[in-house]
Amino acid sequence: MIKPQTLKGFRDFLPQEARKRQYVVDKLKTVFKSFGFEPLETPVLEYEETLTGKYGDEGDKLMYRFEDNGKRRVAMRYDQTVPLSRVVAQYQNDLPTIFKRYQIQPVWRAENTQKGRYREFVQCDVDTIGTDSPLADAEVIAVAAKSLEALGFKKFKILINDRENLKFINDSERLPEEENIMIIRAVDKLKKIGKDGVINELLTDGFSKEIAEKIMQEVERRNPTPYLLQIFESLETLGIDKNTFTFSPTLARGLDYYTGVIFEIEVEEYPVGSVCGGGRYDKLIGMFAGRQISAVGCSFGFDRTIEAMEALKLFPEDLANSSTTVLVTIFSENLKQKSLEAINELRKQNINGEIYLGEVKEKNPLEKQLKYADQKQIPFIIIIGPEEVDTNTITIKNMQARSQEKTTLEDFINKIKK
Amino acid sequence: MIKPQTLKGFRDFLPQEARKRQYVVDKLKTVFKSFGFEPLETPVLEYEETLTGKYGDEGDKLMYRFEDNGKRRVAMRYDQTVPLSRVVAQYQNDLPTIFKRYQIQPVWRAENTQKGRYREFVQCDVDTIGTDSPLADAEVIAVAAKSLEALGFKKFKILINDRENLKFINDSERLPEEENIMIIRAVDKLKKIGKDGVINELLTDGFSKEIAEKIMQEVERRNPTPYLLQIFESLETLGIDKNTFTFSPTLARGLDYYTGVIFEIEVEEYPVGSVCGGGRYDKLIGMFAGRQISAVGCSFGFDRTIEAMEALKLFPEDLANSSTTVLVTIFSENLKQKSLEAINELRKQNINGEIYLGEVKEKNPLEKQLKYADQKQIPFIIIIGPEEVDTNTITIKNMQARSQEKTTLEDFINKIKK
Repeated sequence: MIKPQTLKGFRDFLPQEARKRQYVVDKLKTVFKSFGFEPLETPVLEYEETLTGKYGDEGDKLMYRFEDNGKRRVAMRYDQTVPLSRVVAQYQNDLPTIFKRYQIQPVWRAENTQKGRYREFVQCDVDTIGTDSPLADAEVIAVAAKSLEALGFKKFKILINDRENLKFINDSERLPEEENIMIIRAVDKLKKIGKDGVINELLTDGFSKEIAEKIMQEVERRNPTPYLLQIFESLETLGIDKNTFTFSPTLARGLDYYTGVIFEIEVEEYPVGSVCGGGRYDKLIGMFAGRQISAVGCSFGFDRTIEAMEALKLFPEDLANSSTTVLVTIFSENLKQKSLEAINELRKQNINGEIYLGEVKEKNPLEKQLKYADQKQIPFIIIIGPEEVDTNTITIKNMQARSQEKTTLEDFINKIKK
Repeated sequence: MIKPQTLKGFRDFLPQEARKRQYVVDKLKTVFKSFGFEPLETPVLEYEETLTGKYGDEGDKLMYRFEDNGKRRVAMRYDQTVPLSRVVAQYQNDLPTIFKRYQIQPVWRAENTQKGRYREFVQCDVDTIGTDSPLADAEVIAVAAKSLEALGFKKFKILINDRENLKFINDSERLPEEENIMIIRAVDKLKKIGKDGVINELLTDGFSKEIAEKIMQEVERRNPTPYLLQIFESLETLGIDKNTFTFSPTLARGLDYYTGVIFEIEVEEYPVGSVCGGGRYDKLIGMFAGRQISAVGCSFGFDRTIEAMEALKLFPEDLANSSTTVLVTIFSENLKQKSLEAINELRKQNINGEIYLGEVKEKNPLEKQLKYADQKQIPFIIIIGPEEVDTNTITIKNMQARSQEKTTLEDFINKIKK
């Protein structure tokens, strides 16, 4: 016997969980579409060189990479932004000048599972490619906010910064790119390790104590850049409440590829960390296209969003039930035909119905069938026994109300349809 | 510069294709649910030993397998039946006694791409676990047929056989299991290599000429088993036209794990091979559970289904268009605010709308915006220039009819909603 087990950090989603996930995906898709974002799908496997070097050393370490049967070095999707960038470069001539796409697919990272992290998880992304208008940045933030509203969240905070604010000048010279990335990575840990932690990190990186302290001081005092001010203005025009978003000079974001605005959304009623984050990355596509193509987008943390929705009870109650509305029981082998006719009619009328598929015992034929309906939380049961056949009726059992009544199939169908 | 490229046998789905795929998935889900099948998701990676040995030597060869960072041997999903079997064994106590699930996820096989095969492709499966009633087999076949109908297929043929019919007796003794699998694999190639080919294959497998010919003769003459007759009866009661299904004694199916009924569905109007296939596999789950658990199910070949739908023009025409109904243009930086107000109102009224995000030139401001609407095949365009602002109207351009009219936003919204 082979032990049935899932790999650490990987999960099965049984129907009750899977239904919740579909609910969130459907809601997000509706909002994404309402803003004109179109679906895109990319493969799970990419050439290794397409993915490596885009997420920093940490990313390369956590990436699932291997050699395929044809001796090609391949890697599993690590996020959806790099594959999108590859797609934009590859199909430049087939895509509209401004390309708005959404993508909802799993990604893989060999994270430390002891920290409660998963190694396979879904990301939901929206991105706008081919424009550097601040209206595009505002729209990405707006679609994220409208998505959270559609899922039922009432109180959330959008923290916004500009990567420009994380660039520093020493002796009237800009610090080189590598040093700047070190600063961003250090500041990114501010919430976890505090100010002294960030300064220590900078010291380890080789900055002098004087400069490290100066950076930490300066970063907190920075003001919104002119580009940010334009975004803030557009956000209001796009119907995003002023109290929902805020300038956050110490927001840094982990990924290397951001070049302009960066933002994160935190649910205030249930602080699990950010449920959504994104920003502008004007140089990434150029690595594939050979010319600069501007881009801005964001990504929803699917698991955190679901976790927060569960805590705040934002899922509709009937998601807990089966999607089956009615179970048609079989009273006996003789009367089976009548039950089959009933299930056919229900399905024809677009009512989700099941017929009992297990063995029907002669003694107590309904016992197991009722148990099955209970297990699956099917709200209604139809019984067609000898009496019902004689009078051309059916008996309906309402499983929640624990009541039952005799009626006709037609009347029941009309009632359900209302 | 990194060359933007996809791996051989892997595909990107740009919006127009992705919309078609979503259309098919949505239709299938609706039918699956109407029969009481519930969603399940399993991980892309499994322990290697979970998957190997279930699909024959060929399967083991085509499987994507590697060692992960933690030195575990892992494999990528090869089909959805084996992961389902693992899930049923693993969560026996949490699942209803009869478990009906559907699953729509990609699988990976390192197929020969020269034969036009893909290495990453989606499967859509429905399975019923925990009953050996022929009604369950009939229902799986019925849900497949109803799914094809829902997608618009009018003429298809369901070929049905019983693996019992592929067992042979020599000198009054049943052939051993291994020899039986050889026979099944040989007969499975009948359509491709013909009768003589099958006989040759059997000779290569070590059967005598006499027995090989006898097998080939006998297999064609076999009759429906009693179990099959019960399924045929139930199929009619479930509303499946008698002319749609047929007994096919030479149908074998490639996979090792089938134990009873097997079936395939071919679209008669567009012969691309079978679009759906399945059968009963009563021993597979036992390999994980340690006790026999009956199971029957089927799987849709997603790509073939889409290919056939395209050939038969079964996709709704408007799938070719963007999901955006209207593009609100920006006439000038001064009047931008008016356009933003319009887009907000449209979205509030649940109309999918876009605002132009590119640069608005002073000279010919609308030229690029009209081009964008054309590229994305957006049916309506709203123009709000100085004249419109003065008269509190908007100009609507109908892109298909190449006509335009002045109206109010309110009137336009009411018209679209109808």
